[in-house]
Amino acid sequence: MNVAIAAIGDELLIGQVVNTNAAWLGTTLTDAGMAVEKMVTVADTEESIRGLLDEHLDTFDLLIVTGGLGPTHDDITKQVLADYFNRSLQFHENIFEEIRRRFEARGIPLARSNRGQAMVPEGFEPLNNPIGTAPGLWCDYEREQGTGSIACLPGVPSEMKRIVQESVLPRLRERIGGRNIIRRTLLTTGIGESNLNEELGDLSEYLSQDVRLAFLPGPQGVRLRLTAIVSDDPSPERRMEKLESVIRERAGTYVYGSGEETLQSVVADLLREHGMTVSVAESCTGGLVLSRLTDVPGSSDYVAGGVVAYSNEVKVALLGVPQDTLGAHGAVSRQVATEMARGVRRALGTSVGLATSGILGPGGGTEEKPVGTVWIGLSDDSGATASLLRLGLDRETNKERTVAAVLNLLRRRLVKTFGASGEEGT
Amino acid sequence: MNVAIAAIGDELLIGQVVNTNAAWLGTTLTDAGMAVEKMVTVADTEESIRGLLDEHLDTFDLLIVTGGLGPTHDDITKQVLADYFNRSLQFHENIFEEIRRRFEARGIPLARSNRGQAMVPEGFEPLNNPIGTAPGLWCDYEREQGTGSIACLPGVPSEMKRIVQESVLPRLRERIGGRNIIRRTLLTTGIGESNLNEELGDLSEYLSQDVRLAFLPGPQGVRLRLTAIVSDDPSPERRMEKLESVIRERAGTYVYGSGEETLQSVVADLLREHGMTVSVAESCTGGLVLSRLTDVPGSSDYVAGGVVAYSNEVKVALLGVPQDTLGAHGAVSRQVATEMARGVRRALGTSVGLATSGILGPGGGTEEKPVGTVWIGLSDDSGATASLLRLGLDRETNKERTVAAVLNLLRRRLVKTFGASGEEGT
Repeated sequence: MNVAIAAIGDELLIGQVVNTNAAWLGTTLTDAGMAVEKMVTVADTEESIRGLLDEHLDTFDLLIVTGGLGPTHDDITKQVLADYFNRSLQFHENIFEEIRRRFEARGIPLARSNRGQAMVPEGFEPLNNPIGTAPGLWCDYEREQGTGSIACLPGVPSEMKRIVQESVLPRLRERIGGRNIIRRTLLTTGIGESNLNEELGDLSEYLSQDVRLAFLPGPQGVRLRLTAIVSDDPSPERRMEKLESVIRERAGTYVYGSGEETLQSVVADLLREHGMTVSVAESCTGGLVLSRLTDVPGSSDYVAGGVVAYSNEVKVALLGVPQDTLGAHGAVSRQVATEMARGVRRALGTSVGLATSGILGPGGGTEEKPVGTVWIGLSDDSGATASLLRLGLDRETNKERTVAAVLNLLRRRLVKTFGASGEEGT
Repeated sequence: MNVAIAAIGDELLIGQVVNTNAAWLGTTLTDAGMAVEKMVTVADTEESIRGLLDEHLDTFDLLIVTGGLGPTHDDITKQVLADYFNRSLQFHENIFEEIRRRFEARGIPLARSNRGQAMVPEGFEPLNNPIGTAPGLWCDYEREQGTGSIACLPGVPSEMKRIVQESVLPRLRERIGGRNIIRRTLLTTGIGESNLNEELGDLSEYLSQDVRLAFLPGPQGVRLRLTAIVSDDPSPERRMEKLESVIRERAGTYVYGSGEETLQSVVADLLREHGMTVSVAESCTGGLVLSRLTDVPGSSDYVAGGVVAYSNEVKVALLGVPQDTLGAHGAVSRQVATEMARGVRRALGTSVGLATSGILGPGGGTEEKPVGTVWIGLSDDSGATASLLRLGLDRETNKERTVAAVLNLLRRRLVKTFGASGEEGT
């Protein structure tokens, strides 16, 4: 069953609103076993909406349209739909009564424009909207290729989602037989897309129409998405598992987790499991390492805090970095990163201390230490260490990459010390 | 000049990635005076990409395509483009040398697949990608309706944006004449959308078809977007200026800047102008205030650093918050926020000290101090002060709002002390 997801609204075209509805529908319908083949956004004019219907009703088994069902003047979807199918709009007393009841319960006067919310094109089935005033609409229609369906939903994300879960998915499940899509995402960090590709080598013998692999680069690293399309023959799922084990065999060092995990959540699990605490001394990352670590709810159990030592004075006064070391090697050096990690661990009394010091750009680079030169440090019971990162020229990207690298440094140290936790790690 | 914005990528169709590129391009191209009439996403198969070109090249003056330019097997856009236009792919030595140079500078071995990054379809112009390996592509072609253009850009947002700003917009500006859209965005913080609306009162006499106002809520506050559509008659621009001055008159207290400014860039200008330095003691924000402050290039001139005091021990040891004060009032209190601001200012020797302490959720709330209870503090020559924020239940939103509130506290203090700088402030 192939699906097109459409959105109607000028606010999307001028970029005022990001179309998160499309992504949510993409995931939800794919998980339900449908093939989402196209997403499209058009203006809220009669011409655009007619063009949308012309282009998609014949070629897609299901067209989902979001937006344009509200009570304001620019919401014309229903009228255009009725005209397009040569039907009239009919007033549904029960929908109107339900709207009136809800307004009364909240003590809000009912605006006249809400009468329009109870109008439904003839032959369309209203879909109950439990949290808003605009019902969804559903219509099956006949085409050469068999029955096609159109669903129109409000653009407000929470309302759209409720109607999909309560009314759209049950209708679709009836239609779809066994075919199912199974997905797994492996999260890698510390290696670029092309080098990872090389490391993985030739995977073609594991890939086919029904077992696929995609590379998704992101700020924390490249994600690998494995997909198996399973119908009567269950073998694609087994072959996908084989593909996963081959990937882990060839590039497992770079795999830090899977699915919805993040570097900070993986590190959180390891720290908690082994009763460890952490502190961070941040120079170039300016607090972002600690901010990410504390994004995990309950992180106060293992994050003590840290020092953002943007100036050299703070490195000396709060972290005890010797003035001589700063003078001899400069703030961006192996020696200073090591001293910072030691210093913050000592000052905060934690099991591990981390540190960052580097030149993120755009200014501050020299011939010897160009923009993108970053040292990351770690100190624990077994001693202190530091690694050099050579990053690019974009400040924001450099900051994200440094945060990922220092969290990964911690992850690898914990794995090395204690062994892999659960299924992850190397 | 009408535009279609297309994206290629299965990861978008299955909802794994939200298409934020489309929204950014929508805003950027609309601001540059173009009419964005359609957005579309298709799969990375030859058939889908050919369908995309068939459908849009004739009817749109400009087709922008993002994604599918990377070095891996699922990135086939260039090959399909070359085949579609009956051209061959040509190797560009200078692009390859530039990629090689960048890899060498970072000490990373160059993977063989990067050779493909230097292949460009004949007749296409490569667009320099200053921060990645895949260059953009540009091609003008003849159609019945005159010259049409296609631009292909990498899907990585930071790379896409740089190429648009440095190579695409300059090419488009040459083309566009007469009708012009003038935009101005006023940035407000510390007030919600409906209360701001109330504060502004009736503005209908200043609004018309060609002078418009939109409310855009975001994490740092509500942005007000003013738009004037100017053709032969220049008066809409004057009327937009009038509208702006009325808004500033009625709600100026909440306006902290305009255009691309941010709270941290406005604060940066004020601190630099008055030779002030700042430090921050962060509890609940976990380092995000300092991370934002140091996102501004050159921020080492006025940011000394700070302490992330996630645990009470750190509040005592590094910030000198008296154990008694913590015991009597708890960490989330006016007294502790005040002491933290004083302590960090003293420890780092800065002109101003800031502090945050609160319960962001989901856990940790009590009847007396429910989730969303946050204290922010400030200490400077004139003394120390703290304010209470009562936020909601979402951890991430609460963190963003706290960061905005503490930066705004600093901004208002600086404006009060020194008067407004330039055009901004109250």
